[in-house]
Amino acid sequence: MKQLFYLLFVTLIISGIPELKAEDGYRLWLRYDFISDTQVLNLYTKSVKGWIIQGDSPTLRVAGNELQMGLNGLLGKNIPEISSVKKSGIIVAGTPENSQLIASLNLRERLASVGNEGYLIVSTKYRNKKIIVIAANKDAGVLYGVFHFLRLMQTHQSISGLSIESVPKTKIRILNHWDNLNRTVERGYAGLSLWDWKSLPDSVSPRYIDYARANASAGINGTALTNVNANALVLTKEYLQKVAALADIFRPYGIKVYLTARFSAPVEIGKLKTADPLDNDVVDWWKKKVDEIYSYIPDFGGFLVKANSEGQPGPQNYKRTHAEGANMLADAVAPHNGIVMWRAFVYDNNVPDDRAKQAYNEFVPLDGKFRNNVLIQVKNGPVDFQPREPFHPLFGAMPGTPLMPEFQITQEYLGSSVHLVFLAPLYEECLKSDTYVRGKGSLVAKVIDGTLDNHQLTAMAGVSNVGNERNWTGHPFAQANWYAFGRLAWDPYLGSGEVAGEWIRMTYTNDNETVQRISKMMLESREITVNYMTPLGLHHIMYAGHHYGPGPWVNRGRQDWTSVYYHRADSTGIGFNRTSSGSNAVSQYFPPVRDIYENIETCPENLLLWFHHVPWDYKLESGRTLWDEICYRYDEGVKSVRWLHGEWTRSKDFIDPDRFEKVQSLLVKQERDAKIWKDGCILYFQTFSKRPIPGGLEKPVYDLDYYRNHEYTDIPGIR
Amino acid sequence: MKQLFYLLFVTLIISGIPELKAEDGYRLWLRYDFISDTQVLNLYTKSVKGWIIQGDSPTLRVAGNELQMGLNGLLGKNIPEISSVKKSGIIVAGTPENSQLIASLNLRERLASVGNEGYLIVSTKYRNKKIIVIAANKDAGVLYGVFHFLRLMQTHQSISGLSIESVPKTKIRILNHWDNLNRTVERGYAGLSLWDWKSLPDSVSPRYIDYARANASAGINGTALTNVNANALVLTKEYLQKVAALADIFRPYGIKVYLTARFSAPVEIGKLKTADPLDNDVVDWWKKKVDEIYSYIPDFGGFLVKANSEGQPGPQNYKRTHAEGANMLADAVAPHNGIVMWRAFVYDNNVPDDRAKQAYNEFVPLDGKFRNNVLIQVKNGPVDFQPREPFHPLFGAMPGTPLMPEFQITQEYLGSSVHLVFLAPLYEECLKSDTYVRGKGSLVAKVIDGTLDNHQLTAMAGVSNVGNERNWTGHPFAQANWYAFGRLAWDPYLGSGEVAGEWIRMTYTNDNETVQRISKMMLESREITVNYMTPLGLHHIMYAGHHYGPGPWVNRGRQDWTSVYYHRADSTGIGFNRTSSGSNAVSQYFPPVRDIYENIETCPENLLLWFHHVPWDYKLESGRTLWDEICYRYDEGVKSVRWLHGEWTRSKDFIDPDRFEKVQSLLVKQERDAKIWKDGCILYFQTFSKRPIPGGLEKPVYDLDYYRNHEYTDIPGIR
Repeated sequence: MKQLFYLLFVTLIISGIPELKAEDGYRLWLRYDFISDTQVLNLYTKSVKGWIIQGDSPTLRVAGNELQMGLNGLLGKNIPEISSVKKSGIIVAGTPENSQLIASLNLRERLASVGNEGYLIVSTKYRNKKIIVIAANKDAGVLYGVFHFLRLMQTHQSISGLSIESVPKTKIRILNHWDNLNRTVERGYAGLSLWDWKSLPDSVSPRYIDYARANASAGINGTALTNVNANALVLTKEYLQKVAALADIFRPYGIKVYLTARFSAPVEIGKLKTADPLDNDVVDWWKKKVDEIYSYIPDFGGFLVKANSEGQPGPQNYKRTHAEGANMLADAVAPHNGIVMWRAFVYDNNVPDDRAKQAYNEFVPLDGKFRNNVLIQVKNGPVDFQPREPFHPLFGAMPGTPLMPEFQITQEYLGSSVHLVFLAPLYEECLKSDTYVRGKGSLVAKVIDGTLDNHQLTAMAGVSNVGNERNWTGHPFAQANWYAFGRLAWDPYLGSGEVAGEWIRMTYTNDNETVQRISKMMLESREITVNYMTPLGLHHIMYAGHHYGPGPWVNRGRQDWTSVYYHRADSTGIGFNRTSSGSNAVSQYFPPVRDIYENIETCPENLLLWFHHVPWDYKLESGRTLWDEICYRYDEGVKSVRWLHGEWTRSKDFIDPDRFEKVQSLLVKQERDAKIWKDGCILYFQTFSKRPIPGGLEKPVYDLDYYRNHEYTDIPGIR
Repeated sequence: MKQLFYLLFVTLIISGIPELKAEDGYRLWLRYDFISDTQVLNLYTKSVKGWIIQGDSPTLRVAGNELQMGLNGLLGKNIPEISSVKKSGIIVAGTPENSQLIASLNLRERLASVGNEGYLIVSTKYRNKKIIVIAANKDAGVLYGVFHFLRLMQTHQSISGLSIESVPKTKIRILNHWDNLNRTVERGYAGLSLWDWKSLPDSVSPRYIDYARANASAGINGTALTNVNANALVLTKEYLQKVAALADIFRPYGIKVYLTARFSAPVEIGKLKTADPLDNDVVDWWKKKVDEIYSYIPDFGGFLVKANSEGQPGPQNYKRTHAEGANMLADAVAPHNGIVMWRAFVYDNNVPDDRAKQAYNEFVPLDGKFRNNVLIQVKNGPVDFQPREPFHPLFGAMPGTPLMPEFQITQEYLGSSVHLVFLAPLYEECLKSDTYVRGKGSLVAKVIDGTLDNHQLTAMAGVSNVGNERNWTGHPFAQANWYAFGRLAWDPYLGSGEVAGEWIRMTYTNDNETVQRISKMMLESREITVNYMTPLGLHHIMYAGHHYGPGPWVNRGRQDWTSVYYHRADSTGIGFNRTSSGSNAVSQYFPPVRDIYENIETCPENLLLWFHHVPWDYKLESGRTLWDEICYRYDEGVKSVRWLHGEWTRSKDFIDPDRFEKVQSLLVKQERDAKIWKDGCILYFQTFSKRPIPGGLEKPVYDLDYYRNHEYTDIPGIR
C-alpha cells in the first residue's frame, strides 16, 4: 500500500507536460518535477544512470523509494536500481555495516565524525567508475543524505566533485502539535488535526507517510502529537494503540513519537487520590504507565509537559517544585532511554512581578536540580511568541541544565495563515543573539547546541502549523516556516536567506530572478509585520482571544492578559519600563547585554518600548520624534504589504496559477488587515500622545470607534 | 485555472499503468479510468473518434471539458474535438438553438417532450456518417446528456443503436447542507464544511468545481448552503458576496444556490424590533434584503426555512401561522422567480399529543393557504430519519400544496460514516409507499413528482453527507448515498439495484461477479442495520446527543427526546400504541393504509412496534414469540455484518488497496458496534420481558451496566 502511494507520485511526475498540472500544494517542497532547464538536465542525466542501496531495513527501503521517486521525477525517465557498479554515474547509498560497497570505500575516518544521523555525500571512483556515495553510520543518516542529494538536484546545484559532510547540531528536532483529541488544533489555522484519532489504529491515512517524508526531508526527528494543554485520555490503552499505529509509520523515517503528559493523569485516569510527585503510589503509577507505553511503542521518545501554567495542573499543586515534578517523570522514562521536556512557560497573575521575569525567577534557582534526561523548554522570548521579543533571559542562565528553545511555527501572533510572514529571520535573530554569558560569542545557538556548557542532550522544538487542509498549512508560504524550522534545528547557524532560497527553488521555481525576488519578499516579511503590528518593541497589544487583529485598548480581565499592561501608554509617553528604575527585567541579562538594554541610548530601537517608557518627543536615530516614528513605522508596514503584492504579481509567469491566485487573494487580506492595525493603533495611541499624524502619511480611514468595534469574520481556525 | 484543473484529471488518467494508482476516493464515481476490458475498449474505440459541440456558453464549455476528460481517460488516448463530421464515430452534442448540426437532425418532435433539463442520446446518421447525438433544448440538458453518455461507457454498456430519452421527474433536486458558518457541520461526519467562508470570495477552492461536477453528474441542480438551524449572518452583504462566488462556480453546472433564512433576521441583522411577518417594516425589510440578494446572485433559488421547531424562531412567536410566515418570504422572492421551501418538521414537547402526529396536525389545516411558490418540505417519516419509519402521513394529505420529501443522506441515525449502509432502499421504500389517497397506486412518488395532484413545482431534498475529508463522505460507501439521492431525485421510480450497479461500476470495478457481490451487500445493508439497531418498528432508542450507539434506557430530559417515550417497554410488552386505542396516529393515514396499520394482524411486521404495544409472547410470522424474534433480529443483524465483512474480503482482488483497507477497517468497527447495539438492547429489554435469550444465539459479552456506561471515543464528527 505504501509502495503504491509512492508510485502515485512517480506517476504524477512522469506523466505529463508540466504546464498541465494543477498544483494544490500537497506535495510541499518534495515536488520532484521534471527539470525543464535542458542544460541542467543534461548535466544531471550524464551523471546519474542508476542507483544501489545494499542492505535492507525499513529505513533503507524508504530511502530507496524516495531516491527512485526523486530521480525519476526530476530526470523524467526511469533511473534503475542496479545490483553492481558496471558503469559510471551510479548513486551508491548505505552504511559500511550493511553495504560491502560502502565499506570498501575507505570512508571510515570521515564517517567517524558524523555520528548516528549525519552523512557524507562524496563524488569518488569505484573500480574506475565514477560514483556518488551517500554514506552514513546508521540508516537514518542514509535517508537524510538521500534527501540532501535530491535537494541539490531540486535546486539545480552542481553534483560533480561533491564532498559534503553534514551532522545535525541538535539531537532532538521536534514538532509540538497543539492538537486536541477532538481534532481541533489550538492556535491551528489549517483545518483539523492530521491525527484522525477516531479512525486509528484500524485505518491509517496515507497522509501520515507524507507527513513523515516532509519532516525527514527537513531534518525533523520527533513529534509531540498532543496539545501541551493536555488530555490524560491519550495515556489510556485505547489511545496508546492509536499512538503506536502512528509511531509504526513514522519509525522508518527516523521520527520518534512523544506525548504530552497531563500532570493530574494519575487522578483522572488512574483513580488515585493525588498526583503528588513524591507520593509513592503516584511514582508507581507513572512507572507502570510508562512501561505500558513502551510495550506499545518500544522507541517512545518521552514526555512534553506544561505544568502550573495557565490553569494546567503541576507539582506546585502539591507544594513541590518543577524539578521534583519533572524528575519523577524522568525517573519513570529513564530505564527506557526516554526524556522529559519540561516547559518554562510559567507565569501567574497572582505574582506581582513583571510577567516577563517570572520564568527566570522560577527556574534559575532549580538549575542543576534536574535529572540528566530532562530538558527545559524555553520560548524564544520572555513573554509569548510576539512578532518581536528580546531573547529569553533563561538562555545562558542555567548552565547546569540543558535548555531547548520553543519556537512557534504556527502564526498565533503573526497573522494566522492569512499573512505572508517568513519566520526564519525571527528564529535566526534569537539563535544568533549573544548572551555574553561566557564572553562575546556566547550565542543562544551555542547554549542550544550544547557547546557552551558541554551538554550532550540537545533539542529544538517548533509549535506546528500543519493541519488537514490540502496544502497542509493554509497559507502556501507558511509551508516555508515548517521547512525552515527543521533546517535551523539541524543547523542553528544557517542563514535565513539560504533556507529561503532552497525552499523557493524546491517549492516554486528555479528561475534565478524570481528566486531572488521571492526571497527578498520572504526575508523582509517579518519586519514588515512587526512594523504594522508592533513596531519599536511594542508587544502583546492584539485583540483578546483570537490574537489576530489589533487591540491596544484591551483593558479588561486578568491584568497580565490586557494590552495596557504591556504598552503603558500615557500622556508622557509609551513603553514598559523594564530598566532598573522599573521592573528591572534587564537585570536578568548578563552584562553587557543588561547595560545595553538599560540605557535608552544604547538599547536597540527595535526593542525600545520593550525596555523603556519613552517620552513622545524623544528623538530617534531617524531624527523623528517617537510619536512620529511610531506613525511612520505603521505606515511603512502597510506600504510594504503593497510592495509584497507588487512583487508577487511580478512573479506570475513563474508560478502555477492555483498557488499564485491563492497568495494573491491572501495578500489582499493582509493589506486590509495591516491598515486596520495601523489605523487602530495610531488612533488609539493618539488619544495619549495628543499629537497630529505626520503629514505625508495616509490618514486613517475610519475613526477609533470603528476599529475598537471591528469584528473579523474571516480569521482562520475553528472557533 | 479551471481548464488546468480538468487537465490534471486527464493527466492522471492518461498517465499510467492503472495498477500504480493510489485511489483516495477524491474522484468519486467520475474516475474515467482506462478501460482494461479489451473487448469493450475495442468496441468503444471503433465508435468514438471525435466530438463536436457547436455553440458556446459556460455550460457547453464544461460539457465539452467533461466529454474530453471522460473520453480521453476511458479510451486512453486523445479523442479530438473536431469541427465537422467527415467520418463515422463522432459524438455530436448541443441544442438546436446553438448547433446547426443538431438543428438539421429532425429531432424537434422528440425534443419537445424533454423540457429544459432533459436530453436525447440517439445513434443516427449525418451525411451518411454514423454519429451519436446528445441533444437537448437547453445547455443544461446537454451537460446531463454528456454525463449519461459517459456513464454508459463507464459501466460498459452498449453505445450502439442508442435511443435514450431522459427527463427529470422533479424540478428541484437539492442538497441541504447543515453547514454552519464556522465550518462545523451539524450531523456531519466527513470533516469540516466544504465552504471555506473565511477564504471566500477572494479565494476559491478548485474543489468547488468538483463538487458541482459530482452533483451535475447525478442530476442534482440545487444546493442550500447553510444549516436549517440558521445564522442570519449569511444574509449580510459580506456573506452574500461569498455566496455569489460559489453561485458563479456552480452556475455553469446548472446548479442554483439557496440559503436558509433565519426568521428573526430582521431583528438580528436588520435592527428591527420585530420579525412579525405581517408587520410592514418586516415585509419591507425582507423585500429589500431579497432584492439585495438577487443583485449579487441573479439566479438565486430561494429560501429554505426551519421555523418554530427545536428552538428556531418563526411566525408563531408572533401568533401567526406557518402559512403567513412562508407567504411573506414567498412574496419577497416571487418577483425574482424564487421559491420558499418551508419545513414541516415541527413538534413541541408542550403539545401533549404523540410527536409523530404533530406535523400533520399543524400543516393539514393550512393546505391551500400557501403561495404557489412555496413547497412544504416533509421528512420521509413522521419522527426523524430513523432506520425505519412508515411514510409521513402528510404525503397525500395536502393535495392543494406541493410537497417535497426531505431524505437524510448523512447517516445521523444510521452509523454516521462508520457503518456501511446504502440508503437507496430506504428512499425507495418511502417513494414507492402507496398512500391510497386516490386509490391504489397513489404512490408517494406521485405526490412528489406532481402527477397525483397536478403540481408543476416539484422537488426533492437530501441532507448532505459531504465534508472536506479527502474522499468527501468519510465512508467510501457513503458516496453511494449522495449519488443515489441524485439519481432518485431525477427519477423517483428507479430501483435501488440499478443505482447500486451504476455506482459500483463507476466507483470500483466492472467485474460482473464483484459488481453482483457488492450490490447484494449494499442492497441488504440497510435492513441489516435496522436489525441490529431498531428491528420490528422500534425507533428513537439511540444514545442521546450523538445518536450513534444504543440508548434504550435514556429517560431523562425533555420527554419526547427520551427513548422510553418511544419504545414503551413494560412487563406486558413493548411498542408505541398508535392505533385508535392509543395515540391514533393511524388515523392520519388514508384507508386502507390506516386499517392495515390499525390491525396488529395486518400491520407489516417491520412496523409492528411503531404502531402497536405488543405482548412479549405474541406470535410472529416466523412462529417465534415477539421476545424471541427481537433477540433473533438483533443477532441476525450482527451475523449479517460478519457476512458483509466476508463478502468484502472476497472482493479484494478487484478493489484498489487503499479503499479496500479503509472499508475493511470500518467493517471491524461496524461489527463491534452492531454487537454493542444487540447486547445493550437485548439486556435492557430483558429487564422488562424477564425471559431468557433464546438458545443458539450469541450471549451478550458484558452485563447491562457496561453498555449503559459505554462511552465511544471514535464516532466521526466534531464535538
